[in-house]
Amino acid sequence: MSIQNSNKELIIGLFGFGVVGGSLYKVLKDTPGLNARIKKVCIRNADKERDAPAALFTTDAAAILDDESINVIVELTSDADAAYHIIATALSRGKAVVTAGKSTVAAHLPEFIALQRQYGAPLLYEAACCASIPVIRNLEEYYDNDLLRCVRGIVNGSTNYVLTRMSRDGASFSDALQEAQQAGFAEADPALDITGADAANKLAILLTHAYGSTVQPGQVLYTGITNLHTADVAYGRQKGYDVKLVAHAGKLDDGRIAAFVLPTFVPQDSRLYGVANEYNGVEIESSLADRQFFYGKGAGGFPTASAVLSDLSALRYDYRYEYRKLQPEGAVHVSADYYIRVCISCNGLLQVRHSEFARIDEWVSNKQRCYISGIIQISRLAESDWWRQEGISLIAYLECIEQYGPEAVKAESDWIHEEVYAD
Amino acid sequence: MSIQNSNKELIIGLFGFGVVGGSLYKVLKDTPGLNARIKKVCIRNADKERDAPAALFTTDAAAILDDESINVIVELTSDADAAYHIIATALSRGKAVVTAGKSTVAAHLPEFIALQRQYGAPLLYEAACCASIPVIRNLEEYYDNDLLRCVRGIVNGSTNYVLTRMSRDGASFSDALQEAQQAGFAEADPALDITGADAANKLAILLTHAYGSTVQPGQVLYTGITNLHTADVAYGRQKGYDVKLVAHAGKLDDGRIAAFVLPTFVPQDSRLYGVANEYNGVEIESSLADRQFFYGKGAGGFPTASAVLSDLSALRYDYRYEYRKLQPEGAVHVSADYYIRVCISCNGLLQVRHSEFARIDEWVSNKQRCYISGIIQISRLAESDWWRQEGISLIAYLECIEQYGPEAVKAESDWIHEEVYAD
Repeated sequence: MSIQNSNKELIIGLFGFGVVGGSLYKVLKDTPGLNARIKKVCIRNADKERDAPAALFTTDAAAILDDESINVIVELTSDADAAYHIIATALSRGKAVVTAGKSTVAAHLPEFIALQRQYGAPLLYEAACCASIPVIRNLEEYYDNDLLRCVRGIVNGSTNYVLTRMSRDGASFSDALQEAQQAGFAEADPALDITGADAANKLAILLTHAYGSTVQPGQVLYTGITNLHTADVAYGRQKGYDVKLVAHAGKLDDGRIAAFVLPTFVPQDSRLYGVANEYNGVEIESSLADRQFFYGKGAGGFPTASAVLSDLSALRYDYRYEYRKLQPEGAVHVSADYYIRVCISCNGLLQVRHSEFARIDEWVSNKQRCYISGIIQISRLAESDWWRQEGISLIAYLECIEQYGPEAVKAESDWIHEEVYAD
Repeated sequence: MSIQNSNKELIIGLFGFGVVGGSLYKVLKDTPGLNARIKKVCIRNADKERDAPAALFTTDAAAILDDESINVIVELTSDADAAYHIIATALSRGKAVVTAGKSTVAAHLPEFIALQRQYGAPLLYEAACCASIPVIRNLEEYYDNDLLRCVRGIVNGSTNYVLTRMSRDGASFSDALQEAQQAGFAEADPALDITGADAANKLAILLTHAYGSTVQPGQVLYTGITNLHTADVAYGRQKGYDVKLVAHAGKLDDGRIAAFVLPTFVPQDSRLYGVANEYNGVEIESSLADRQFFYGKGAGGFPTASAVLSDLSALRYDYRYEYRKLQPEGAVHVSADYYIRVCISCNGLLQVRHSEFARIDEWVSNKQRCYISGIIQISRLAESDWWRQEGISLIAYLECIEQYGPEAVKAESDWIHEEVYAD
């Protein structure tokens, strides 16, 4: 039974009853206006005590997926493989799906788009990017590809919490991470967050709705915050910057797309500067609306449930992503052929071959670290991993991507050598 | 011919070809993906030269409203009465309508809602509130009435520009206003803006989508910025506040709604603090998503055209406001029975009867002005106009509305008398 034939009553089969699933259950009970009810919840461990009637639960996925009266699947498991099978099966049976599974969506989006088109059932995943912030919906609806200059966002709450602690309180990376875990902002296994992989997943999803690219997250240049030193953060603060893990997407002059996730020096006049702790923020620049900024909690049970609720609400009026910006397969779309300005922080200058830079603008050394700022080609970074080695960190400057063309690179390097022996 | 029957090609009849209309025309030409074209434009003055083919224009409204092939009316006139007739007629003929006319929508919303229901045609007006910021859509979709604690926003770009100049550069109100007019951020007749009437219109619209209230803008307590002194702004800055004209809506403990537009002392830790010049910002607080913040340009041709474009895009998938929070007519909904903390600025203490306050917390006088801060009941403000007299300004503190119950008022007043003779 499709949603359209059921007078839009949403009869939900829920997978997963963790923090988000539990929050959603509570909220749906309290908001009868939505005309939605959870018929069955599939969980892995039947013995765990839960704050809901036992009859609601099953460990048999088929009991939900085969139930024709269930017209909406809400997928909130923590298992990416299971999530893939649930989503693919549900779509191919014509059921609408709402998911918060960012890694699953990022990895399988082209297939999920094809399934939606083949079977006519919608897949919504606002919760997969920045939780409560309606960024996917707004990119999909508000910003035409041609008009969208760039999207830059702090999209991972755990790393932002860690960086805020490092920056404001001078905490070390490992102390800050431990604290984030204690505060519940980072997973027990924080690898996905701190390596930047989670942010790359979100960027891949955003790229689809911003520019119609369906790239695998692995095709996007990304790194996380594991190599950052407290000294790097302090160095940035001296210069008026805060270090944030920023996902960048922007349109290049040749029509191709620049996309990367890197620790970034954010200046005070940027809206992203004030995004602290577990919050997320996304700045969208378009030639019509100019700069817009969306800010809110990027993680947590209720903020994520809020996005799921909104997707459920949207199903009632048959909302679906139209993917109308989608580029034909094989179109060269994401480019590595552009330059960005970065700061390389290292223990000694010998660690870095200067020829990696197209231009070096500044070289600072103090007792703790050496800092080399200059222009570097993204393709050179993508092809090498010297800058990922222990002891080296790379921090981009938050600047317009398009400003370093070949001319800038050809210009004579303006070397500044400051030796600062601060204590 | 309805949109649904036409394979969603939008055939547009446009009323008005000013800054916004002209921008929209340009943008639609450049974005064929939208599958929308302007068939006819109704203008008042046929002789004015315009950057579009002459055959596109007519001065005969009926030529558009009677044309059955036109399925969407875009209303961008500057005449509120004309706008009302265009919108009402178009809806009653089953045509979808997109408008930026905030005063028209605010004044006639109940009737427009009834017409939408009777004839099945949608009316969208995202451009009527905060131009490019998708606040109506997000309130409508994202935040259930029960979960929405409050909405607070800087919704008028002209007054915000004036206040920014007064605050940052110490400009007088009249100088700042003149400058805003020269910069194109304020109308030649800025009365609607500076009296707060425009912000009240927007608040009335927001109240419908946030809480389901259909109040007339005149029923909402509002005032503008005409009485503000440069000294008031400076006094705020000394205390760490910036003065902004803020539209407030919040849910009270008894389920009723608090709503007012007042100049407001905004503290530095508020997201609204950084909203400067012609920008708008809206903070939405809900029990699920916590605090969210939307920021962008609140005025101007392209930002407004951007919102219109988004509404057009939404028509393609039959989007409409559902108004599902709407309260039954006659329901007591907006309350005046609550207290807020304000600062009264005046030339001499004799101007203000202390009995107007439920409690006075602080009294400061300096060479320029006297400042009395305390708790005051909204109903007392609504029933009197002493605080609107020349020489007196009232500035609210940006605080949680619910914190001043009867207990707070009964508490013994804690008088602080500071006489400050600064020069």
